[in-house]
Amino acid sequence: MYNLLKGKKGIIFGALNDKSLAWKIAERAYEEGAEIILTNTPVSMRFGDIETLAEKCNTIVIPADATSEKDLQNLIEKALEHFGTKIDFILHSVAMSMNVRKGLLYDNVNYNFYQKTIDISALSFHKVLQTAKKLDAINEWGSVVALSYIAAQRTLYGYNDMADAKSLLESIARSFGYIYGRKKKIRVNTISQSPTMTTAGSGVKGMEGLMDFTERLSPLGNATSDECADYCITLFSDLTKKVTMQNLYHDGGFSNMGMSLRAMKMYNKSLEKPIDDDVLVS
Amino acid sequence: MYNLLKGKKGIIFGALNDKSLAWKIAERAYEEGAEIILTNTPVSMRFGDIETLAEKCNTIVIPADATSEKDLQNLIEKALEHFGTKIDFILHSVAMSMNVRKGLLYDNVNYNFYQKTIDISALSFHKVLQTAKKLDAINEWGSVVALSYIAAQRTLYGYNDMADAKSLLESIARSFGYIYGRKKKIRVNTISQSPTMTTAGSGVKGMEGLMDFTERLSPLGNATSDECADYCITLFSDLTKKVTMQNLYHDGGFSNMGMSLRAMKMYNKSLEKPIDDDVLVS
Amino acid sequence: MYNLLKGKKGIIFGALNDKSLAWKIAERAYEEGAEIILTNTPVSMRFGDIETLAEKCNTIVIPADATSEKDLQNLIEKALEHFGTKIDFILHSVAMSMNVRKGLLYDNVNYNFYQKTIDISALSFHKVLQTAKKLDAINEWGSVVALSYIAAQRTLYGYNDMADAKSLLESIARSFGYIYGRKKKIRVNTISQSPTMTTAGSGVKGMEGLMDFTERLSPLGNATSDECADYCITLFSDLTKKVTMQNLYHDGGFSNMGMSLRAMKMYNKSLEKPIDDDVLVS
Amino acid sequence: MYNLLKGKKGIIFGALNDKSLAWKIAERAYEEGAEIILTNTPVSMRFGDIETLAEKCNTIVIPADATSEKDLQNLIEKALEHFGTKIDFILHSVAMSMNVRKGLLYDNVNYNFYQKTIDISALSFHKVLQTAKKLDAINEWGSVVALSYIAAQRTLYGYNDMADAKSLLESIARSFGYIYGRKKKIRVNTISQSPTMTTAGSGVKGMEGLMDFTERLSPLGNATSDECADYCITLFSDLTKKVTMQNLYHDGGFSNMGMSLRAMKMYNKSLEKPIDDDVLVS
Repeated sequence: MYNLLKGKKGIIFGALNDKSLAWKIAERAYEEGAEIILTNTPVSMRFGDIETLAEKCNTIVIPADATSEKDLQNLIEKALEHFGTKIDFILHSVAMSMNVRKGLLYDNVNYNFYQKTIDISALSFHKVLQTAKKLDAINEWGSVVALSYIAAQRTLYGYNDMADAKSLLESIARSFGYIYGRKKKIRVNTISQSPTMTTAGSGVKGMEGLMDFTERLSPLGNATSDECADYCITLFSDLTKKVTMQNLYHDGGFSNMGMSLRAMKMYNKSLEKPIDDDVLVS
Repeated sequence: MYNLLKGKKGIIFGALNDKSLAWKIAERAYEEGAEIILTNTPVSMRFGDIETLAEKCNTIVIPADATSEKDLQNLIEKALEHFGTKIDFILHSVAMSMNVRKGLLYDNVNYNFYQKTIDISALSFHKVLQTAKKLDAINEWGSVVALSYIAAQRTLYGYNDMADAKSLLESIARSFGYIYGRKKKIRVNTISQSPTMTTAGSGVKGMEGLMDFTERLSPLGNATSDECADYCITLFSDLTKKVTMQNLYHDGGFSNMGMSLRAMKMYNKSLEKPIDDDVLVS
Repeated sequence: MYNLLKGKKGIIFGALNDKSLAWKIAERAYEEGAEIILTNTPVSMRFGDIETLAEKCNTIVIPADATSEKDLQNLIEKALEHFGTKIDFILHSVAMSMNVRKGLLYDNVNYNFYQKTIDISALSFHKVLQTAKKLDAINEWGSVVALSYIAAQRTLYGYNDMADAKSLLESIARSFGYIYGRKKKIRVNTISQSPTMTTAGSGVKGMEGLMDFTERLSPLGNATSDECADYCITLFSDLTKKVTMQNLYHDGGFSNMGMSLRAMKMYNKSLEKPIDDDVLVS
Repeated sequence: MYNLLKGKKGIIFGALNDKSLAWKIAERAYEEGAEIILTNTPVSMRFGDIETLAEKCNTIVIPADATSEKDLQNLIEKALEHFGTKIDFILHSVAMSMNVRKGLLYDNVNYNFYQKTIDISALSFHKVLQTAKKLDAINEWGSVVALSYIAAQRTLYGYNDMADAKSLLESIARSFGYIYGRKKKIRVNTISQSPTMTTAGSGVKGMEGLMDFTERLSPLGNATSDECADYCITLFSDLTKKVTMQNLYHDGGFSNMGMSLRAMKMYNKSLEKPIDDDVLVS
């Protein structure tokens, strides 16, 4: 609508289906004049709908396991070839926890799963950055964004080892942001997005109650996927050149709220009919 | 019980009655071997019970309006005289908002009241520090603590201009902590305490619901006044000499929680009987 | 260049001359299709060049002392009249410290000056917001931005009571952001900008050394005024609707740096010729 | 000296020699009346001097690789047996990066080494906590502390993947602190200590220049190992029962400083003889 990304080239990780944040971001980037390439793991490609998105965005999908240096190298080389020029932005929206999937609580994690969570959800971001840098694949003043969540700062029951992975992800954004900024003028940031009813999100136990609470606590309500895409566009654009190493809350104000009138009123309702605390087991 | 403050001298601002945080801190400091002097405004002295505390702690009360440089100078000079030596620690527990008292909402504050809130609840801390420094009243490695609240970082409806005052208070702790540390090896910190049912706290609208929520959100529950006193003692002791310019959360973990199972269960109860949002007026 | 603010109306506080951040922001807002009104105090108008800017932006100047509720009411009423419609954004770039001007150090401040610093540099922001809200002057999804500085979080010698004022300013953005978001869907944020050689900045003692240090510590270097204007435009635009109550660092990465190679190399140079610490008096 | 830990039992990880933070903490815990057990990896035991410490503290060493669940289970079972009762506190001071040792820069890390850094320096903390919890080895109101560093928040060149590991470590403290607090009233915190000339620290390139800078930036100067031990004692004591999930800066004020007069004066010295920036390669 504004041509904010006119002439820019980018790679979008993690679009599964039209509920994905990455999906919306890809669409918006395309609308704003960018050329993009999509990527996801082969297994995600089977379960999702990414080819539909590729068609809409008039582009191709290059499969890659974001934990594999070899796959990433292939992806970026192919992207450079496809575009015939360096790229300008990357979106990282990749996360998975087998401990969460298997219902293993945080005080009973399987450490192989934990290492896998870290590898997929955080270390993959370092691998993307390191590979891109080694191939000198990003133009000066390029922009790299990863999607995060406030569990990186504040504990939410049930979020499990994903919370630790998000902390690590944000640390990688800082650490690599320093290097990539100093050497290549490239910025690296994370967006800390409201809880969102993506396919991944809808699998989280108690997601609905949590989203009701965050909706009422946030003065502007939860941020939607479409709004996240809009925000992400500003970070890919030339208007945010000196923003780097930041974790940027896109959450309707949630992160700086202690208690709102609306959430408190709702909470107080339940004070009138106390629950049996002995039932609380986990 | 441990003689942690043996031989130390201190001034305690803000004890009103036995529900006050400052009251408990005075008692604990005395127990730990400190000699203390109590102070409060003349009007607070009338409404409260500070003489009882003075008796228990075998000491005197010197009235002072903490917003008056003249009163503060008199207080500190008298304290130096009384002790016959410099002092080692100061507790600042002083806060008041006329906007809160008069029920003026944050989008309808009276600016004279606002300035008064700032003067009493934050600027008074600067005045205490500046006066003490001018009189060279504190020994090297002395410790100054002010009591704060997480509203300084996160908005809680109804906390009004006190939130801004607490932010300013914490900034003053940093700004003066730098100066006082560099020049005199004196440390300045704030404790960010759980909501507490003091006389001031019990006047806050909706305090009970909030305390139920924070109790359930905090893994260790709300911190009590007695526990606050214990913690404060460690900050006055010689064991924390290099802790300065910090805001230290003493809150059972609340500050780093997003959502607990216990709070969520309670909240979810009320989802079953939705409230009428139109009723929400403020 | 992108028509990001097409059709939007705004008020810009604090443009003095072409070195001012507010000046650049006004120009960029105009370029992006906004209609704006400029304002400053009568005395600043005399010393500065604001009429030149008004001409460039094809608009008018309405004088107002930002500490005066009456002036603010007049300003906003005139603006509504001028535009014939509600406004969409406000920039607050107002700060002054008599303690700094008079060279009074932070442990020797004049408290009348201190209250003045607070009133001009922080409370004025509340007054703008409260006045705008009372007049229902801002459209839904409007955006209000104030300019801040990292001294709000970390002490920089010489920044004096301005550090405290910036902390308070950011707290006001949170506190009012909650209210204005909940009631009117309006967002309120602060931008924490790199040190900048504005007319105000160039008056700060030791500014050049500090800017050399921050330039070398920040992986992308200090953010310029032009870049600040670009960033501010994104916050006024419809692409950041769910960003509120935030303090957003626009500083080339400075805020998340501990030590860079470049700054350390420079620092180490001086280790070879140690200075006489006794000379350090303030 | 105060009997603050009288009757308490604890396990200390990571004492190598008398420069170690863990060494000082062990000595101080013993002085304060605690019974302790020491542990380290077999290889560290060979290179270090831990038996000397065991003798001074009248205790035993139980070797354990902190990344091995089996070793940790054995350690804690032996400790329970040795004490004949549950334990009250644990210190985790364990960190190692092969990328740092091998001089691999952060944009050229070996990912096996990276996973190893994570496993040793962060995940080991989770393993200690999970094992202790499964064995129900810690008394109610027990205290677990891990040593961290400000690189978790702010990038310091050369600190490499250790920065990411410290971020993860602090996240684990929060995540497990929630669980352990809720279920067993046990608190979990990290201390973010000044840079210290331990055996590990002295291996860091450019450590001396950095320590000169942090010494001059911190109003109280760098915190020493002895002071760290003192501070740690307060966290093991009963006086800090409601402090949990926190990262506590013990750094002479460094963490909240932007620029001090002393550091700036030193820095400015070098401005007089500019260095050749082309030399900066890394």
